[in-house]
Amino acid sequence: MHPRRILIAQGGGPTAVINQSLAGVVLAARGVSDVDLVYGARNGVRGIVNEDFLDLGQETAANLELVANTPSSALGSTRDKPDLKYCKEIIQVLQAHQINHFFYIGGNDSSDTLRILSLEAEKLAFPLRCIHIPKTIDNDLVSNDHTPGFPSAARFVAQAFAGANLDNAALPGVYVGVVMGRHAGFLTAASALGRKFADDGPHLIYLPERVFVLENFLADVKQAYQRFGRCVIAVSEGIHDASGTPIASLLAKTVERDDHGNVQLSGNGALADLLCEEIKSKLNIKRVRGDTFGYLQRSFMGCVSDVDQREAREVGEKALQFAINDQRNGTVAIKRSGAYSINYAVNYELLDLDVVAGKTRVMEDELIAASGTDVTDAFRLYLQPLLGSGMPDGFRLRSPAVAKIRNVGG
Amino acid sequence: MHPRRILIAQGGGPTAVINQSLAGVVLAARGVSDVDLVYGARNGVRGIVNEDFLDLGQETAANLELVANTPSSALGSTRDKPDLKYCKEIIQVLQAHQINHFFYIGGNDSSDTLRILSLEAEKLAFPLRCIHIPKTIDNDLVSNDHTPGFPSAARFVAQAFAGANLDNAALPGVYVGVVMGRHAGFLTAASALGRKFADDGPHLIYLPERVFVLENFLADVKQAYQRFGRCVIAVSEGIHDASGTPIASLLAKTVERDDHGNVQLSGNGALADLLCEEIKSKLNIKRVRGDTFGYLQRSFMGCVSDVDQREAREVGEKALQFAINDQRNGTVAIKRSGAYSINYAVNYELLDLDVVAGKTRVMEDELIAASGTDVTDAFRLYLQPLLGSGMPDGFRLRSPAVAKIRNVGG
Repeated sequence: MHPRRILIAQGGGPTAVINQSLAGVVLAARGVSDVDLVYGARNGVRGIVNEDFLDLGQETAANLELVANTPSSALGSTRDKPDLKYCKEIIQVLQAHQINHFFYIGGNDSSDTLRILSLEAEKLAFPLRCIHIPKTIDNDLVSNDHTPGFPSAARFVAQAFAGANLDNAALPGVYVGVVMGRHAGFLTAASALGRKFADDGPHLIYLPERVFVLENFLADVKQAYQRFGRCVIAVSEGIHDASGTPIASLLAKTVERDDHGNVQLSGNGALADLLCEEIKSKLNIKRVRGDTFGYLQRSFMGCVSDVDQREAREVGEKALQFAINDQRNGTVAIKRSGAYSINYAVNYELLDLDVVAGKTRVMEDELIAASGTDVTDAFRLYLQPLLGSGMPDGFRLRSPAVAKIRNVGG
Repeated sequence: MHPRRILIAQGGGPTAVINQSLAGVVLAARGVSDVDLVYGARNGVRGIVNEDFLDLGQETAANLELVANTPSSALGSTRDKPDLKYCKEIIQVLQAHQINHFFYIGGNDSSDTLRILSLEAEKLAFPLRCIHIPKTIDNDLVSNDHTPGFPSAARFVAQAFAGANLDNAALPGVYVGVVMGRHAGFLTAASALGRKFADDGPHLIYLPERVFVLENFLADVKQAYQRFGRCVIAVSEGIHDASGTPIASLLAKTVERDDHGNVQLSGNGALADLLCEEIKSKLNIKRVRGDTFGYLQRSFMGCVSDVDQREAREVGEKALQFAINDQRNGTVAIKRSGAYSINYAVNYELLDLDVVAGKTRVMEDELIAASGTDVTDAFRLYLQPLLGSGMPDGFRLRSPAVAKIRNVGG
C-alpha cells in the first residue's frame, strides 16, 4: 500500500460548521501512521485544477480548533460544477501530487462531482479514494436524517422569527420573512420552532413543497390578520407556481443563473417586496414589512447549534475512518437512532455516492400540516433536538388588566 | 405627600433590552414604601388614552426577570406622536387614576411627548412627575454617551458583517448590507467592529452623516474590488443626496410616512437592490448580493450585549431614584467616565427634558474617517466596550502554500 496522501476541499455555499468537518479530517489523519501528507485545495475543485494547495500538516491543533469554530469555508469555496473534461484535469493534478484520497465537503452537486471523478479514476485505473462529506443549510440530501450546517441555520431562522414575532406583537402589522431553500422547505419550516405561545407567529408558512397561489396567500393573510390583529409569515425563496416557475423569477427583470443552471434566488429583496406590495394594495393593510434573511442565515457569526458543531466534526472524522477501514468510495450519511423524539442520538454510515449524488430531498408529507401553511408535531420533534443547547426563550407579562374608570377612549 | 402611583409605558421601535428598563423601574419601586401602585400602559401612550393598563404590582420578580431578558417591548409599543389635544386626554386619564409618576421608555420622540405633557400638567397644576428613560438602536439622543438598545443592535451588526465577510471571502464578489439608521450612522458604523484582519470587510461604509454620490460610490467599489478581489459594503438606510433626499425614497414607487412625518425606510429591500443593480451594470461584476438587515437587527432573539442589559436595567432603576430624590422632571442620560478607551465605566444623570426632546444626535466628525467611507480608531474605542462579553472571534488557516508541480492551471 502506498502512503496515504490526502486532499480536502470545500464546495458550494458556506455554513456555520463546515470548518468543523475540515478539522475533523485533518485532526483524525494525524493519528494514522501511514498518512504521508494532508493538503487543502483553495476554493474547492477550482483550486485543484489551479494546483492551489495548502499544506494542512503545518497547522497547529489549536489553530485548527479555532478555525473549526469560525463560520464559512476556511479553504474558500466554488460554484464550479465540473464536467468530464474538468474532472480529467483534476485527476491529472492529483496524479502529479500522488494524491490518493480526496475528501470533498459539500452538497449534492459536490457529491455528483465525486461520482464523476470516481468513475473517471476507475476508468484510468488510478487508485483514488473519493469520500463525500455532507454539508448544506438546505438539508436536501437524500438518505440523511439531516445535513451538517442545517441545524445552525435552522437555529438562526427560529431565533429570527422568535424575535420578529415579538417585534410584530409590539407594533402590530404584517411581517414577511423570506428564507433560503430552493426546493426544500426545511429551513423555512424551522421558523415554526420560534413559536412558544398559541398566538405566536409565524402564523403562516409557505414551502416550496406546495404550489403557491397568490389568491390563496392573500386570503390566508387576511384571515390570520383578522384573527390575531397582526400576521407573521415565513416564505421560502423557492415558492413557485403550478408550473414550477419560482415566484421570485417571475418578478426579476434579469434572471441570473449559476454554473449549475439554477436561477439565482438569494441576494435581493424582490420576493419579499412583491408579497408586501400585494398585501398592502389588495388587503389594504398599512403596516406591512418584509425582510429577506439572505446571507445572514448561513454565515452569521455567533449563532450555532452545538449539536451541529459536534456532528459536523464527527462526519469529518468518520470520513477518514471510512476511507481507511472500508475499501470503497462513498458519502458519509447521518442516521437517527429511533423515531423523531426528544430523545436523540445519531449514527454514521458510508453510502454509495450515487445514492445521494445529484438527488434532492424535499420535506416529507408527514412533516407538513394538511393546511399546507404550517408544520406538524413530527417536524417539531424532528428539528428540536438539532437546535442544540441554550436556545433563548421568550416570556410575557402576566399582569391582570386594571379596571377602567373613564372608559371613553378608543 | 400623596402616595406614589406610577405608570410606565414603552414607545417607538423595540430593542433587545427595553424590558430591562421596565423591570428596573418595577423592581426598584417595590423597595419604596410610599409607592401605592405600578401600572403599565399597553402600546405606549395609545394605551393611556384607551385606559388600557396592566397592574404590574401582580408580577412576580422571577417573571419580571424573564421578561427583562426577552427582546421587544413587553407592554407593546406605538408610533403615535401625541399633539396637545392627545396630551390633554392623557392627563385626564392620569388624573382619573390619580397617577402622579409617568415613566416613558423611548427615543427622542417619546422624550418630546413627555416635554409637552409636563408643560401641560404644570399649566393645569397637576402634580405629575415625568421621567424619560432612553432607548433607541439609532443611538441618536444628544447628551448621552450612548443609548440602551444600541449596543445590542451594534453587536448584531458587527457579528452579521463578520460572518458576511467570511462568506464573501469564500465565494468572492460584492456584498451590500443595508443597516437601519435614518439620520445617525452609529449602527452602520458598528459594521467596522466585525473586522479583524487587515483585508477583512466591510471595505466601505456609507453613513448618513456624509452626502452620498453614486458616481463616487461606484468608483470606491471598483477600487476596493480591484484591490481585494471582492468587496463588502455597509450602507445606512438613511444615505441621501446633497439636497438631503434619502436615496431609498428616490426609488420607492409610493412613499410611506409614519405619524411623525418620517419617510418609511425599513421593511423593504429596494435600496440594496438598487445599489446592487448599479454595481452589476456599471462595473460589470457578476456576483453582487445585497441584504437588508431589516427587523432582525433590533429584535433577533439571542444576540445581546450584557453591558447593554446591565445599563438598560440601571437606567430604569435610576429613573425611579431620580423621581424620588430629585424634585423635577427629566431624562436619564448615560455619561461615560473618562475618554473613549478600553477602560470603561458609566454614570447616570438626570437632564432636563428639553435637552434631548426632539433633537437628533449624529456621529461626531472625530468618529468618521477622512475618506468618509470608514470609521476612526476613536469610534472603535467608543464602541468596543459596549458590545459586551463573549463576542465571537474568527480565525484563519495559516498553512503555507504547496509548491506547484504541473503549473499549467489557470
